[in-house]
Formats: sequence, C-alpha cells, structure tokens
Amino acid sequence: MRRIGIKEVEDIALGASLLGAGGGGDPYYGKLMAMGAIKENGPVELISPDEVPDDAVIMPIAMMGAPTVLCEKGTGGNEYREIYEMMSKYLGKKVYAVMPMEAGGVNSMLPIAAAARLGLPMVDCDGMGRAFPELQMVTFTIGGVSATPMALTDEKGNSAIFNTITNKWTEELARAVTMSCGGSVTVSLYIMDGATMKAYGVKDIVTRSEKLGRAIRSVKEHPEMTPEEAFLLASEGYRLFKGKISDVLRETNGAFNLGRVVLDGIGEYKGRRAEVSFQNENLAAVVDGEIMGTVPDLICMVDTETFVPVTTEALKYGKRVLVVGLKCYEMWRTEAGLELVCPRYFGVDTDYIPIEERVKGGDR
Amino acid sequence: MRRIGIKEVEDIALGASLLGAGGGGDPYYGKLMAMGAIKENGPVELISPDEVPDDAVIMPIAMMGAPTVLCEKGTGGNEYREIYEMMSKYLGKKVYAVMPMEAGGVNSMLPIAAAARLGLPMVDCDGMGRAFPELQMVTFTIGGVSATPMALTDEKGNSAIFNTITNKWTEELARAVTMSCGGSVTVSLYIMDGATMKAYGVKDIVTRSEKLGRAIRSVKEHPEMTPEEAFLLASEGYRLFKGKISDVLRETNGAFNLGRVVLDGIGEYKGRRAEVSFQNENLAAVVDGEIMGTVPDLICMVDTETFVPVTTEALKYGKRVLVVGLKCYEMWRTEAGLELVCPRYFGVDTDYIPIEERVKGGDR
Repeated sequence: MRRIGIKEVEDIALGASLLGAGGGGDPYYGKLMAMGAIKENGPVELISPDEVPDDAVIMPIAMMGAPTVLCEKGTGGNEYREIYEMMSKYLGKKVYAVMPMEAGGVNSMLPIAAAARLGLPMVDCDGMGRAFPELQMVTFTIGGVSATPMALTDEKGNSAIFNTITNKWTEELARAVTMSCGGSVTVSLYIMDGATMKAYGVKDIVTRSEKLGRAIRSVKEHPEMTPEEAFLLASEGYRLFKGKISDVLRETNGAFNLGRVVLDGIGEYKGRRAEVSFQNENLAAVVDGEIMGTVPDLICMVDTETFVPVTTEALKYGKRVLVVGLKCYEMWRTEAGLELVCPRYFGVDTDYIPIEERVKGGDR
Repeated sequence: MRRIGIKEVEDIALGASLLGAGGGGDPYYGKLMAMGAIKENGPVELISPDEVPDDAVIMPIAMMGAPTVLCEKGTGGNEYREIYEMMSKYLGKKVYAVMPMEAGGVNSMLPIAAAARLGLPMVDCDGMGRAFPELQMVTFTIGGVSATPMALTDEKGNSAIFNTITNKWTEELARAVTMSCGGSVTVSLYIMDGATMKAYGVKDIVTRSEKLGRAIRSVKEHPEMTPEEAFLLASEGYRLFKGKISDVLRETNGAFNLGRVVLDGIGEYKGRRAEVSFQNENLAAVVDGEIMGTVPDLICMVDTETFVPVTTEALKYGKRVLVVGLKCYEMWRTEAGLELVCPRYFGVDTDYIPIEERVKGGDR
C-alpha cells in the first residue's frame, strides 16, 4: 500500500494519456476531479493486487460515453456515492476497494476521485492496460467475468442496474441509456472478487502510468541521449512516423469520436505520408500505404517537442507529432483476446500482426 | 372477487380493443397469451380495488414497444417470473397482486397471463382507462406516483431496473433500452400500495371492457334498434364519421407507429372527407377540415358491419369504418391531466375541447 497525492496524480494522468492511445478523453479534466477529491478528502490508498483478499468485493468505476461529451458535460458530484450505494444494496455485500477499468485518459482518474470521496482504497490494476471504446473489451471478458450487474447513474440523478446475457449486450443497453442521458454517465461493472481480479487483471498499471508520466516529464534531463531517444526508451515505444497534421476528418456519432488524421512527413520522414484512424482510440497507423501498427497494440501520437500525448480530440491542422507504437498487454494477443479487439472488429481490414513484427527492419 | 376464464377473456379482449382507441396492438395476440396461461394454470382471480388492503404491494405489468413489433417478436415465456423476482428482490417486499397499466390492446391481456402464471390475483383497475403511447401518461403520474423503480426484461434474458428523477425520464431511458432489445420488452412500473391505487386508478375498467365486448358481440340482438344504435348506446360513443379508407400513410420510427388515415364518406356522409391521425393510438378526427375530437378523448374506428374495433396496424385501403368518439376518464380533463396528454403534446395544434362539446349539434 502507498498513498496517491496531488504529485502522483500529475504523473499518473500524464502517463495515462499515453496509454489512452489517443482515447479516453482529455486527462486534464479527470485530473482536476481527482485532485479536487484528494484536496477535500486526503490522499488515496493504492493497494497492490496481492494485498487484496481473494473473497473481497472489487468495484470498478468508470465513465461511459464519448470523451468529448464527457469533458464538456462533467459530473454532478454525487455519482460515486450513488453507484456505491446502488451496488452495495444490490449485492448485499460490502465493497472492499475500487479499481479503474481502463488505464487511459479520464477513466484512469475517476477511480482516484471515487476512492477519495468514498474513503476506499484503489487497486493498482485495470482491465485493459490501455483504453478501448466498448465496455466488453476488457481482460475480464476473456476470463468469463460478467459485466453485470452493472450500475449506471447520470449527473441529474437518473440511474439503472443492468443484467445481461452477454457483455456485448451490456454494451448495447448501457450505450443506449448513456446516449439518452446526454452522452456520458458514471458506471460500475465487472464487479468481481479479489481472486478473479488477480487472475485476469492488468497488474501494477497505475504504477506503470506514474513511471511513464515521470519519464515524459524528464526526457530532457538525459545528457547521454536525445529527448526522443529518452522517450522511446522509457515508453518502450516503436517509432512509426513523424509528421505535421495536414488534415483531420472527424465525426461524433453521439456514441463515439470517429475519424482519421493525415500527416505529412517531417525530418527524416519528409516526402512521406501517413494516416492514423480512430474510434475514440487510435486504431491503425498507415505509412505510405503500408500498415505499421494496429489495435490492440497502442498507436499513440505525442508532441515532437514536449512528448506530451495528443488525444484524438486535440488533433488539429499544423500540429507536429511523433507516432509511436506500444505493445499491448499479452492477453490481448491470444485468440480470445483478438476475438474482442482484432483490427477487423474496428473496420481495419487486416489480420493482427504484433507491432514488433510490423516494424521489423524499421527504426526503433 | 370473481374468476376470469376463457370466455371472459374473449369479451375483455374485444372491449379492450375499443378502449385501445386504435392502439395497444392487435388484441388477438394478447388474447392467445392470456388464454394459454389460463389453460395451463386455471382461471385468474379478478379483485375489486376495494378488496385490496391499503398497504398491499401492487405490481403493474405491461409490454413496452411498438405494437407491430410486439406482435411479431412475441415473448419468451419467462418474463413475468423474471420481473416478479427482480421486483420482489429489489423491494424486499411480497407482491400482493398484479394490475394492468392500460385498458387497451395487448396490455389489457398480458397482466391476465402474468396473474395466471404467477398465481397472483389481478386488480380490476388501470392507469389510463384507454391506451396511451408513452409510459408517463398514467393517472398515477397525476397522483405524483413515481414510475420507478421500473423493471424491464426482454425475451432473451436481458434485464434492467431504472430509477429516474421524473416519469418522463423513465420513458426516455426505458424507450432507449426497449429499442436496443429489438423493439418490445416486458416491464413493471408504478409499483404502488393499495391506498394509492384506490386514490388514482381507473376503477372497474376490466369489467367495463368485458361489458363492452359482450355488447359489441350482441349488437344484432336488439329488435328495437339498429346494430349501430345498439353499439353507440352500449359504448356511449359519439358518431363522428362513416367512410371508406382511401389512403393510409404510416411510418414505424422504431418506437411508435405514426401516421394518418384518409376516409371518403359513405351513407349519410357521402361527399364528405375525414382524416384520423395516430401515434400508436388515434389522436384526432378531422371532418371536412373541422376537428371533431382529439386526445385524451378516445377516437375509435370500428367495422361498419361487425362493430369490431380496427387497430391502427389493421387500417387498409377500402375498409369501411365508423369513427366514434368516447369520453376519456375525467382525471384526464383536469389541468394536471391535460399537461400529460393534451392534443398539442402529440402535435395536434388545438386546445382540448371535450368530445361532447365538439359534437354539440352533431348526431349522437
């Protein structure tokens, strides 16, 4: 167990915006919520998965909806307490700790805010090791964990509890209600015991985010290498492209931020062209017509000077970005994992080939 | 208390199809469900509101969705048990009886099927005295009763419990889930105690349906008057028009059956023209440009020979119908009632004027 205060939240938010792979929403908003809650209630206890008893009830907390809506509309403040009470009553059991469901963006921060406000510890674990746009896309689905009972509440005070026959049906029904509630809601789902969390969760992911954030902040402090080298080393990222944004095509269909960004090469990539497509998160990077990386690996864009990750909603004409690929959590590379998050599910017409094989012969 | 068997169901279904005012779905399908349940489980106990203890828990049962979808898709069979168990568990109380929410169409029949299958009595009361397309449109909303907790289940086994800040929000969220579930689901809502049911419910409505059905069946057995006179007398209906359907314009937008029907006058109405608009239920009858009746009064169309009511989905070119207007339940005519179901809410651009005033000077 260790304590997460304001400083740790800064680093976690920065690292989480990289693991968001462009999605999960602007971490700034989530950071403010986490910091506000810590200022009011004190630091949050971050516990290692191994510290959690096998029979303890773990309550994941997340926001559901289009990130752009989510950052505009905000929350009411009472949602965590409401969700906690709904779940405790429904289960007839005491909740032991909260947990993030995804490591990227706003959803890396909200569980910290919830933990602070509820006075519960947060487990250093998530169900993605990144961000994904649909709620069945978690390692716990691979482990056969039901997404339901799922609790949902909006900032106005409307709430629902779902029980569905599959996790894909949870996504269907909860998405419909999310849209009716204005496009973003607070949810808890994949309620599980400690043993299940330990078997299928992506462990120590909060700590990884924190280290990533700290590394990004200090890329210029390494005299023996360039900041870019320092960034690639710390992130274990594969360099896929460097370019200036020459076009951004986007569509918010109410549920997702969809689109693609076109890049004109700069520096050693001058004269070349790349395209990155996204559905909340970045889906694939294509350089001169060749696919260089796809989901479930993380396709990330970062500022070429500061190495601060650029989320899909912050993409704009003229911005210079480095495109990097990060290996996804190994469970996503299994048959069961790819059934949930293979490129074709997202409309990217290719088999999944691990990023390290795609870039073989390329420059790391 | 009296028992409702196969014969009573026949009459109730026929009367309910008149009270459905064109909506509520083809009663034939609901009738089959009620009869099937009675054949398997025996007759249903129909209890008068006055027989219900003030603190008894009453569980209304209904289907939600577009009637056309509802009659195509059907039910799985386990929904009543599922809803009953969800509600009992959620409330932590024993359910005393089921109750219909609307008097018209399929929803007049499903509570009979539910009562038979659950072995519970059914209360002779509803919340409309007719059918309406949206779930906040019940007398209980006037009485300040919350629609939630609302339980919903589909035939596949997906379910949800809602708690909302207003009954209009219940409609919003449950409608979204209903559409995601394929367009029709089984629900329970407006859970209330016996005292509330007695204060705001439309009492003895099942018995009224049964009497109406019996009267329609026997319109030709009155030597002293024409069948039409017998029908108008028994239904207390105002004759608005008689015509042949010359056009039907319809649209199922997923949630509702919308449209209008154009009639060319026959008999004493020859040379005149009428139009009836509908949203699941008939909304307004306009004769030669003059509004002759609107919601919340019941605008009904019946076959000119058999006087069997014609539901909106059965409207077709060439059919000859008598258009009649029936007074709605008095509570709908109050300010609070009209706030929920005034003509303008349904897009009919007129103030509400009671049917008996509209037809003053016309022929009853």
